[in-house]
Amino acid sequence: MTKNNNNLNFYIKATFYNKDMSFGPGAIRIMELVKEKGTLTEAYKSMGMSSSKAWKLLKEAEDTFGIKLISTTTGGVGGGKSELTEEGEDLLRRYHNFTDELHGVAKDLVEKHFNYDIIDDN
Amino acid sequence: MTKNNNNLNFYIKATFYNKDMSFGPGAIRIMELVKEKGTLTEAYKSMGMSSSKAWKLLKEAEDTFGIKLISTTTGGVGGGKSELTEEGEDLLRRYHNFTDELHGVAKDLVEKHFNYDIIDDN
Repeated sequence: MTKNNNNLNFYIKATFYNKDMSFGPGAIRIMELVKEKGTLTEAYKSMGMSSSKAWKLLKEAEDTFGIKLISTTTGGVGGGKSELTEEGEDLLRRYHNFTDELHGVAKDLVEKHFNYDIIDDN
Repeated sequence: MTKNNNNLNFYIKATFYNKDMSFGPGAIRIMELVKEKGTLTEAYKSMGMSSSKAWKLLKEAEDTFGIKLISTTTGGVGGGKSELTEEGEDLLRRYHNFTDELHGVAKDLVEKHFNYDIIDDN
């Protein structure tokens, strides 16, 4: 195919689902931010997301896998804190390992199918 | 990790980009619908998308790859018609081949990283 002078990059989003529940990039981003910031409120606010949307995403993710992902302590000095459960940490690590490996394979497939040089800045 | 009784499925979305332009599932869906329906108007309407959004997606896709994707004849008996250019057909075929092959690899990687049985209904 025609090649222009700009190299292409790409990203991949993987979403898991069963029946009417799903788990994907939105829930993953919340989990990463909870880990970084220590509160769910700061996590969803920094994504420009509402509280109800954030809880819905997390609830769906927990239902999809049948595990608890985040534990929250409310009130106390300095307000409530949230952290990933052990199983939440495990799921986050698995998702990152999966997408990292998938991205590596995809890079070869892009070159094969599109005949494009890929800049890998991920 | 904990396994519940519901089997999981998954989908993957791949988006290509360079500088400030991108090409992904939105433009692909428009192209598929133009091919099916024969007009761009029917294509974006059936996606619940506005005319300006559809043109923007297509323009960005064309700029990303440096090729013309859709040709439109305006007016005449029965109104205007749109079809994929030869290069548009070629790009659509490449994208489908790429995502099909990627999905097959991803299925193995999901089983490896998540220890899950995957229902493959794609």
